[in-house]
Amino acid sequence: MQKITILIHCKDRPNIIATVTNFIAQKDGNIVYIDQHVDREQNIFFMRLESEFTKESFSADVFRDAFKNTLAEAFDMKWRIYSSARKPKMALFISKYDHCLYDLLGRYNSGELNLEIPFIISNHLDLKPIADSFKIPFFHVPVTKDTKKEAEQKQLELLEEYQIDFIVLARYMQIISPKLIERYPNKIINIHHSFLPAFVGAKPYHSAFKRGVKIIGATSHYVTEELDAGPIIDQGVTRVSHSHSIEDLIAKGRDLEKIVLANAVKLHTNRKVMVYNNKTVIFS
Amino acid sequence: MQKITILIHCKDRPNIIATVTNFIAQKDGNIVYIDQHVDREQNIFFMRLESEFTKESFSADVFRDAFKNTLAEAFDMKWRIYSSARKPKMALFISKYDHCLYDLLGRYNSGELNLEIPFIISNHLDLKPIADSFKIPFFHVPVTKDTKKEAEQKQLELLEEYQIDFIVLARYMQIISPKLIERYPNKIINIHHSFLPAFVGAKPYHSAFKRGVKIIGATSHYVTEELDAGPIIDQGVTRVSHSHSIEDLIAKGRDLEKIVLANAVKLHTNRKVMVYNNKTVIFS
Amino acid sequence: MQKITILIHCKDRPNIIATVTNFIAQKDGNIVYIDQHVDREQNIFFMRLESEFTKESFSADVFRDAFKNTLAEAFDMKWRIYSSARKPKMALFISKYDHCLYDLLGRYNSGELNLEIPFIISNHLDLKPIADSFKIPFFHVPVTKDTKKEAEQKQLELLEEYQIDFIVLARYMQIISPKLIERYPNKIINIHHSFLPAFVGAKPYHSAFKRGVKIIGATSHYVTEELDAGPIIDQGVTRVSHSHSIEDLIAKGRDLEKIVLANAVKLHTNRKVMVYNNKTVIFS
Amino acid sequence: MQKITILIHCKDRPNIIATVTNFIAQKDGNIVYIDQHVDREQNIFFMRLESEFTKESFSADVFRDAFKNTLAEAFDMKWRIYSSARKPKMALFISKYDHCLYDLLGRYNSGELNLEIPFIISNHLDLKPIADSFKIPFFHVPVTKDTKKEAEQKQLELLEEYQIDFIVLARYMQIISPKLIERYPNKIINIHHSFLPAFVGAKPYHSAFKRGVKIIGATSHYVTEELDAGPIIDQGVTRVSHSHSIEDLIAKGRDLEKIVLANAVKLHTNRKVMVYNNKTVIFS
Repeated sequence: MQKITILIHCKDRPNIIATVTNFIAQKDGNIVYIDQHVDREQNIFFMRLESEFTKESFSADVFRDAFKNTLAEAFDMKWRIYSSARKPKMALFISKYDHCLYDLLGRYNSGELNLEIPFIISNHLDLKPIADSFKIPFFHVPVTKDTKKEAEQKQLELLEEYQIDFIVLARYMQIISPKLIERYPNKIINIHHSFLPAFVGAKPYHSAFKRGVKIIGATSHYVTEELDAGPIIDQGVTRVSHSHSIEDLIAKGRDLEKIVLANAVKLHTNRKVMVYNNKTVIFS
Repeated sequence: MQKITILIHCKDRPNIIATVTNFIAQKDGNIVYIDQHVDREQNIFFMRLESEFTKESFSADVFRDAFKNTLAEAFDMKWRIYSSARKPKMALFISKYDHCLYDLLGRYNSGELNLEIPFIISNHLDLKPIADSFKIPFFHVPVTKDTKKEAEQKQLELLEEYQIDFIVLARYMQIISPKLIERYPNKIINIHHSFLPAFVGAKPYHSAFKRGVKIIGATSHYVTEELDAGPIIDQGVTRVSHSHSIEDLIAKGRDLEKIVLANAVKLHTNRKVMVYNNKTVIFS
Repeated sequence: MQKITILIHCKDRPNIIATVTNFIAQKDGNIVYIDQHVDREQNIFFMRLESEFTKESFSADVFRDAFKNTLAEAFDMKWRIYSSARKPKMALFISKYDHCLYDLLGRYNSGELNLEIPFIISNHLDLKPIADSFKIPFFHVPVTKDTKKEAEQKQLELLEEYQIDFIVLARYMQIISPKLIERYPNKIINIHHSFLPAFVGAKPYHSAFKRGVKIIGATSHYVTEELDAGPIIDQGVTRVSHSHSIEDLIAKGRDLEKIVLANAVKLHTNRKVMVYNNKTVIFS
Repeated sequence: MQKITILIHCKDRPNIIATVTNFIAQKDGNIVYIDQHVDREQNIFFMRLESEFTKESFSADVFRDAFKNTLAEAFDMKWRIYSSARKPKMALFISKYDHCLYDLLGRYNSGELNLEIPFIISNHLDLKPIADSFKIPFFHVPVTKDTKKEAEQKQLELLEEYQIDFIVLARYMQIISPKLIERYPNKIINIHHSFLPAFVGAKPYHSAFKRGVKIIGATSHYVTEELDAGPIIDQGVTRVSHSHSIEDLIAKGRDLEKIVLANAVKLHTNRKVMVYNNKTVIFS
């Protein structure tokens, strides 16, 4: 049996659902999940389907072609079709903070994540021992003003060589270059340590402390060229009070960051995220 | 244009979705919402559809018959079909607590609720002035050991006379009789002032205080014969601490009760709740 | 018996707590509540005490003088002393939205709020029937470009005449003049319908929708001259998703606004808020 | 400089606060934190103080004796005095689940926890590699029906030998013997994977799924002889829906368990928990 996940979006018009479900029935697929959303402001239709195919003769590639030539063109769809056969490959970019790294590697080792981690890249050597203890290849790619270009080149080569599907910035403290973003559109996940759009940029916990907010947050989002302004995948919050110092905010924030980033990784690898207009549709 | 909402559940088997969506397309309906759920433990399939019909000649009754005779029987479905034409009628049962009453009537007056309130029943006269100030008919139906039977009879007559669709117990402090429950199955909504199944029965805030919990809750559920054990529609929680007295818990709980009960009323009237096995499926 | 609440802040230095508690013991007071906070960044000390005095001869005025002449001057304190004898008087300013109004008046009638509401001011007549049904005096003070000055004068006169202690803007849709703010410093409570500092200004739900946030919020704060930038008293949040329209956000937001504003009113009237550096200390 | 933390509880009566703060001032201590709570139901007074002593001649032992002989006896106090000099020693008991273990060791390595972990005990060998990779001594103490007594003896010896202050059961799947509980009263912290008192005992996620709750929780508590009935330290909750399978509940629950257990460990080691009447007072 093969399981196929289909993500579609296109201009809304009548009969899309019936046509797509009919098409799958004709191919002897059984729909085990369907969810849809319509953005009434923009008149855009979104759908996520999971379908099981039990026939020996089923070929995901043949199905993909048929889907493209009939449905996708007729409805002018943007679409992606994933087979359950292949696990997505994730590259981890880190710097000196270890909490998200520990959290993701702990989940990975426990079998909680449906993915592979071919390697970790860091611009510092500090966290290499953690990568080692989890037996994940670690590449030190330092980034300075002068070596920026070479560093980026090195990163691209590694990503290519290991056939990486998406990148997770686990508190990686360097700006990602436009070239990398362009190469991995909506495939670079960042964790920002504030409740965006509040406190964009550096030192958000300091800003939150100064403003005297009563709730702090963390936001996972896809990286776009504008800093901290990409499509939001998940957000989490927790209460704070006047009695919390900046250090307390940072410590409480770490727990948010870990969970909000892990959620984003799971949603992404389970093919539950669709991006449009710098926003996300998150299917259940 | 007419809008039809269809709720279905039946044994899971292949091609239900394609068959139903195809049926609607044949009747010239446009599906504007579809969501489905499969309980894998029990192998039960659930679906909720909203469909728009623009043809002058469309008749909800004819559609209902066709659906019944073809689909429903073939798949052995339990199903309900609602037309947007008719607003559900809600009877409010109250006693002496006024917070849920104020909340629901405030929302009703603001136009937030898609329903009608033909009358309020209370076993006490205390809150009559509130009903009067909102200009809702108020019936005083006292309940004592000796008058229980007559009271129930009176309630049933009023519900019948005003063609009530569902009942909301807004902190109504009397046990509902089996006869009434049988007459309105999954149509009587109660608000219980605890995070069920913790603290079933009377005085849950006192029990919560005694146990020293750090979070309290409220639960809206359909009334069944077993006390506080019916299908849960919604739950809400809030943090408490050792510094809160029982009175503080009661005050904090009031805010939970208001919101959790209002949510249940909205979900019910928007046809987003399906009940099976003493549990609910809540569609988005 | 009289109950006195004391709020103090001053530069932090040794022995403040011992000196103050000693002073109260000398005056035969029994401390029933004490809490303190030190802002280590700014080196400021905050304290809140509740003390009971049972002697017939106790006079709050005499106590206040003694406190001022000995402690307050010695430690260069900013301080306030409240007697439980007097209930604070709150003026409600409203426009056309009724949800916060219904909520506050419902709580008021239920006896949940420790305050008096001498009157309601509105720049529109729409909500007068609600004020009438709750039997609260209603003053219509329209505000147009040309009548702004007179309107403000009228407001000030009413506030003066009724000896108002603090003002609550329950979705009042006019900018408060600097003169009014100056006259009631940290005594005007506003509810802003976003998670500040995100989405300052008009139409925050529209902005939240556009940005695609996964959580929305509401913020109660004291009004200062800079729009939506005053000291935050309380904040609340709730999850939203892509499936929520702007209207859904507005509806969900109403529940937040009601609770977050009511919390601020309770904290203010229970003398649990201290303001400094455009932030608040909120005692438990 | 030495920092002393004092925890007190006793029958409530006038002038306790003034007397204690005065005593500390006489010993040249500067109170940097004070918080108090009175349980009005039981008439019990609780206080937590932090005080700094800068004099060279200050001795914690001398202070402790003076406190005992004057204050503690006069007010019939239960009290504890901790010096900041000594870090508490925590023993970790585990079985086969690794998520809480990864989480605590990650925090420990990051320097987030103010404690030492002399060793880990497990009744299985499965997680030894994790202990090894974090370089923490690991003792395998299998527990079977027949070896229960010896296992307990072995545990007690290890706890004694390493001068353990408190024990954390990080999803340890064995019942703790009364002897161990008696030896470490309010010093054994357990994480239960439900929102207690709902779903006491085994398989709470299965019970939660069956009951159809809309929110699940986790509870950290001190272990007492009655199963899952000890004083609650912290609780956390998260929303679930009909779409979540039991496996989903377990996965979501893991995140709760990690945070709620880590919070309990921090509160305990920061001396912020007082226990009485099977409840806790948690200071800020």
